[in-house]
Amino acid sequence: MGRNRLEALSDGMIAIIITLMVLEMKVPHGVRAAALVPVLPVFGSYVLSFVYLAIYWNNHHHLFHATERVTGRILWANLHLLFWLSLIPFATGWMGENRFAGAPSALYGGVLLMAAIAYSLLQRVIIASQGPDSILARAVGGDWKGRLSPVLYAVAIPLAFWWRWVSLGLYAFVALLWLVPDRRIERVLGDPDAAAPGPGSRR
Amino acid sequence: MGRNRLEALSDGMIAIIITLMVLEMKVPHGVRAAALVPVLPVFGSYVLSFVYLAIYWNNHHHLFHATERVTGRILWANLHLLFWLSLIPFATGWMGENRFAGAPSALYGGVLLMAAIAYSLLQRVIIASQGPDSILARAVGGDWKGRLSPVLYAVAIPLAFWWRWVSLGLYAFVALLWLVPDRRIERVLGDPDAAAPGPGSRR
Amino acid sequence: MGRNRLEALSDGMIAIIITLMVLEMKVPHGVRAAALVPVLPVFGSYVLSFVYLAIYWNNHHHLFHATERVTGRILWANLHLLFWLSLIPFATGWMGENRFAGAPSALYGGVLLMAAIAYSLLQRVIIASQGPDSILARAVGGDWKGRLSPVLYAVAIPLAFWWRWVSLGLYAFVALLWLVPDRRIERVLGDPDAAAPGPGSRR
Amino acid sequence: MGRNRLEALSDGMIAIIITLMVLEMKVPHGVRAAALVPVLPVFGSYVLSFVYLAIYWNNHHHLFHATERVTGRILWANLHLLFWLSLIPFATGWMGENRFAGAPSALYGGVLLMAAIAYSLLQRVIIASQGPDSILARAVGGDWKGRLSPVLYAVAIPLAFWWRWVSLGLYAFVALLWLVPDRRIERVLGDPDAAAPGPGSRR
Repeated sequence: MGRNRLEALSDGMIAIIITLMVLEMKVPHGVRAAALVPVLPVFGSYVLSFVYLAIYWNNHHHLFHATERVTGRILWANLHLLFWLSLIPFATGWMGENRFAGAPSALYGGVLLMAAIAYSLLQRVIIASQGPDSILARAVGGDWKGRLSPVLYAVAIPLAFWWRWVSLGLYAFVALLWLVPDRRIERVLGDPDAAAPGPGSRR
Repeated sequence: MGRNRLEALSDGMIAIIITLMVLEMKVPHGVRAAALVPVLPVFGSYVLSFVYLAIYWNNHHHLFHATERVTGRILWANLHLLFWLSLIPFATGWMGENRFAGAPSALYGGVLLMAAIAYSLLQRVIIASQGPDSILARAVGGDWKGRLSPVLYAVAIPLAFWWRWVSLGLYAFVALLWLVPDRRIERVLGDPDAAAPGPGSRR
Repeated sequence: MGRNRLEALSDGMIAIIITLMVLEMKVPHGVRAAALVPVLPVFGSYVLSFVYLAIYWNNHHHLFHATERVTGRILWANLHLLFWLSLIPFATGWMGENRFAGAPSALYGGVLLMAAIAYSLLQRVIIASQGPDSILARAVGGDWKGRLSPVLYAVAIPLAFWWRWVSLGLYAFVALLWLVPDRRIERVLGDPDAAAPGPGSRR
Repeated sequence: MGRNRLEALSDGMIAIIITLMVLEMKVPHGVRAAALVPVLPVFGSYVLSFVYLAIYWNNHHHLFHATERVTGRILWANLHLLFWLSLIPFATGWMGENRFAGAPSALYGGVLLMAAIAYSLLQRVIIASQGPDSILARAVGGDWKGRLSPVLYAVAIPLAFWWRWVSLGLYAFVALLWLVPDRRIERVLGDPDAAAPGPGSRR
């Protein structure tokens, strides 16, 4: 089973999810520049979600680059990830239209949390199918980012009801953490003799 | 004639159909978590339709994986399937917004029934073009799932007017039947010497 | 210059154009089956446009299958075709919502006419770049369908204001003409020694 | 790292961005041809944006055609370009619905300016990764179009508040400049011995 169509479906869905979010930015009715002011929170939430989807696409790209064969379980784990990503425009729209109010910001974090869990499941399913000595298993190594992100989301979700800006700051912080592209896979691919990473090599 | 563009069009359309359904989940106007309650039936119908479209994509993937050449008839049978799949967002939206009322749930079943018939036609057209000894013909074998599903839909459609939950239960049950990915093709591909399946080997 | 990305953009746009048309079928507010009645003309116009877009995709597929290299002029002629195809949802929506009234049906015909001219231009640009002895030039031959279609559209457009059903009948008739897939290219590919088609071989 | 998925995401997003703009052309409520008159400015702004997106796609096609390997920085520079392109439907819709009023036309120019800067950054990042002797570096040469366009946008943006038609004329003029497809890359690819372009060869 090749990975072509899995990548085509994922690229298509991520491209559509990103672009549909712009539709939530309703064209304002006024003619003056001031008419853009109420659009600003929607724009802000779009920027955050764009960055998140770009990160997922980038990491998905690296993840499957190192995947040699695709099984039925991988197909379903990938569809599960796409399901949670497909809810991002809804959560983004609700949050943006309500100027980052409590419940919408908490829902946004909930969707991010579920997507992070789904990505992590996908990664495990792939590693399980490729074997513990595969390029991917060695590349992922300790995966501290993948472990830390859900914890930060879980902290941010209840905070959204009291200190919404702390909560949004945490969402933005996790995005920044991941903005550094996942060089681990590139590195191991470039240096196939690299041993399984020892404790000191974990990032 | 290669199958690349047929797969590209199908992947593109399925990706868009799935994502457009999320647009039916209108962003609620309230700010509180309670504002999500009326969205719940729409969300439920989205989950069901997502699973159906994921199953179709998965099975389509397996079907064409075993298809060696594409004829004009296959192109049209595939477009016919995509036509019925493209109506799923409309039926899902109507059903979700009316909390699974009778007529909308029956229409939903009708669209599922037509899609199942279209899939079955596509499968036959492909088998006819590949020959009875092809990998696909041997892999599909008795195809009890493909025969049972339309029967269950046909039962569920009239029931929607009296016992809507039985009818929805049947839709969900058929989805569960298919959630088990179609291993038949993988198995025959993996074991090319497998004889034509005898009565005992049918699943 | 490969033709991969040209095909990817075209497949993507055609997939989206088809699927967006379904969005014009607004989910009805009523719960009863009768609520579907006003949706019927919109559904009818969707079916017609789906068939047209499927025909364009099919013929586009055959056209580029026989194209060996892609030039800048071909890229632009293809984008010109996609421009007119992208207006089909707008014309379909206006026609369907107004139950095939005069002006909307004439506009629909106008968009079909421009798309037919754009396809014909694209075909000429490709033949010019591949040379008169290319597979495509021999396969297209007399191209009576490509010549007849714009004439029928040009007749149907003014008729839409008086006898709208004649005009719609003509649109449907042209679609039926083309539903027979373009076997000319398949035939020449299968039989590379086929001479340039003489008058008797034109279809 | 191959460039396949980068191209697939870009093609998908550009295809969706183009097609979503048509959704801004709301189907008019009247039945008569006169009902189309208020749609005309929206149509005009759609044509302009279609041409811009087609130019970006074309140049993107040529740019990556000459790119041999894709790095993490190229992935992000490409996503940055797609971000600005994704805002074109919003700016187009606002400008078209307000008949090219001052602030909307200035915003439109602002989005074009940011997209031009993003394209130019992408080009630099690619050249930096491919080296100064790469096909691309030689092909791009003086790049007077890439330098002139942002200057013209920067002039047009403030003018939109006083002489909106001059400003729109400048946007259209820049589009015409680029409509001539970028033959530089084709030429160098076709003639690999071409020396680095001297001052006289700059266009």
